[in-house]
Amino acid sequence: MDNLYELIIIGGGPAGLTAGIYAMRAKLNTLCIEKGNEGGKIAEAGIVENYPGFNSIKGYELAQKFVEHAKKFNLNIVHDNIKKIDTSNRPFKIIGENNTYLAKAIIIATGTKDKKLGLNEDDFVGRGVSYCTTCDAFFYLNKEVIVIGRGTPAIMSALNLKDIAKKVTIITDKKELKAAEQIMIERLNSAKNIDVIKNANIIKILGKDKAEGVLISINGEEREIKGDGIFISMGHIPNSEFLENSGIELTKNKFIKVDKLCRTNIDGILACGDITGGMLQVSKAVGEGAVALASASKYLDSLK
Amino acid sequence: MDNLYELIIIGGGPAGLTAGIYAMRAKLNTLCIEKGNEGGKIAEAGIVENYPGFNSIKGYELAQKFVEHAKKFNLNIVHDNIKKIDTSNRPFKIIGENNTYLAKAIIIATGTKDKKLGLNEDDFVGRGVSYCTTCDAFFYLNKEVIVIGRGTPAIMSALNLKDIAKKVTIITDKKELKAAEQIMIERLNSAKNIDVIKNANIIKILGKDKAEGVLISINGEEREIKGDGIFISMGHIPNSEFLENSGIELTKNKFIKVDKLCRTNIDGILACGDITGGMLQVSKAVGEGAVALASASKYLDSLK
Repeated sequence: MDNLYELIIIGGGPAGLTAGIYAMRAKLNTLCIEKGNEGGKIAEAGIVENYPGFNSIKGYELAQKFVEHAKKFNLNIVHDNIKKIDTSNRPFKIIGENNTYLAKAIIIATGTKDKKLGLNEDDFVGRGVSYCTTCDAFFYLNKEVIVIGRGTPAIMSALNLKDIAKKVTIITDKKELKAAEQIMIERLNSAKNIDVIKNANIIKILGKDKAEGVLISINGEEREIKGDGIFISMGHIPNSEFLENSGIELTKNKFIKVDKLCRTNIDGILACGDITGGMLQVSKAVGEGAVALASASKYLDSLK
Repeated sequence: MDNLYELIIIGGGPAGLTAGIYAMRAKLNTLCIEKGNEGGKIAEAGIVENYPGFNSIKGYELAQKFVEHAKKFNLNIVHDNIKKIDTSNRPFKIIGENNTYLAKAIIIATGTKDKKLGLNEDDFVGRGVSYCTTCDAFFYLNKEVIVIGRGTPAIMSALNLKDIAKKVTIITDKKELKAAEQIMIERLNSAKNIDVIKNANIIKILGKDKAEGVLISINGEEREIKGDGIFISMGHIPNSEFLENSGIELTKNKFIKVDKLCRTNIDGILACGDITGGMLQVSKAVGEGAVALASASKYLDSLK
């Protein structure tokens, strides 16, 4: 059969690549399918300080190191956008935009994507609205920027922007900006050019050809906040739409339900990294990538 | 109270140091207690090729990087050998050889140690018998060495030795040498100077002032295998003796029982890394270190 693999890993971020490194060392006939950039979403992080071994590294450099590592062990990474997994027969069928693939075992490591406001922000993407401070901060050197968001993502974005932009205004609909790590709050509080507007209801992005600000309401009162650039950092939602009707059990927030060994409810289908929920951290992703591969190997052995 | 910490991490290997990095970033009042070398057992690994981001790094260099990383965030690491944890009161009491410590939460990351033969091998340690190829291989340049062991540890030791020693003989009591990673088996098979003796019952280490070989029996027939150095690689047992009667639940193999969030059966006591069993891998240790800290933070928050 063409396109039949012992193992297919969907997703080429830290979790998927770790599973891939272990898979190649396990000598499994493996394919890794990534829809975007090899290395995954960590490439968009500014500075990563909490992946042990690198006390400070740019996100895209860390992503690159993961990719190089996987390629050193000859992991085959192809580009495709997976639309559906058919688990009704074995081998499993994986249906992508470009191709259909067959796999005896699957590791899902598709991570998360940016949560949207659901307003008119997409009319301005590339014209003043961005989801990625690492990618776009430098367009706003010495300018005034707005971060719309919540919690750690919003704080991280503001911290990434504070040394580039003249002024950063965080607008949140929450009562409080909470951070996963206390060090983030301290850095936020000690920054002189970051303002925070809380309890704000975001109404729409203002502008014509390009974004010029945000219309918000606080206690029913409308206000216009002007800004040259607007970064949206609302958090993350799991890339699990393609699993609808696959039979793979999801949590109520649409993450994949796994046990301690990264096993889903379907034998031979594992999941690892951000897509399993919990901490969205490279450390966790890497740990789960290794564990998922061990479980996949064990499953494949059981077929022999 | 003197010596009262929000969090005490017992063990300063990859898992403990990862928890430590995250703890310092969480701004917890934290102490890490290590009984041996900072960086843990990974320092004794020859080359590490499967910790993502470093496609090939010496074990002790990786250990050093972890230590540096933790120290960059000012993790306080002290040396002590913990003898007992008293969980009957809160804060918990941790009793070491040098000191007694109090902690609101504890993360146990004490890892594993080498399994012994239980014969006369300890009479020859430092005189021809070693548990650590990385430490001692070079004493046997162009000499003949014996590896007594099982599975991955024995194969790893032989591979570490093959380019230094003239000849390596692996003696195992098992029918087969199984490896956690197939790549290890291939490397073993392609090495020209490694012999394997299977199904061997080890009787004793031979020698007077220093080890000179091993007496084995195969199918009831005794044989002397001569060697200049003997490496023992029988695998690993958990460092959990100090937890006897602590109330912390262990598995039948004396690893610590944890759930997906690295929680033990006692609220506020977490465990991570090799001590929780499963894969003895840096990736898993690091992942669990991060997760354990998140659980510790959550527990500490619940006390406020």
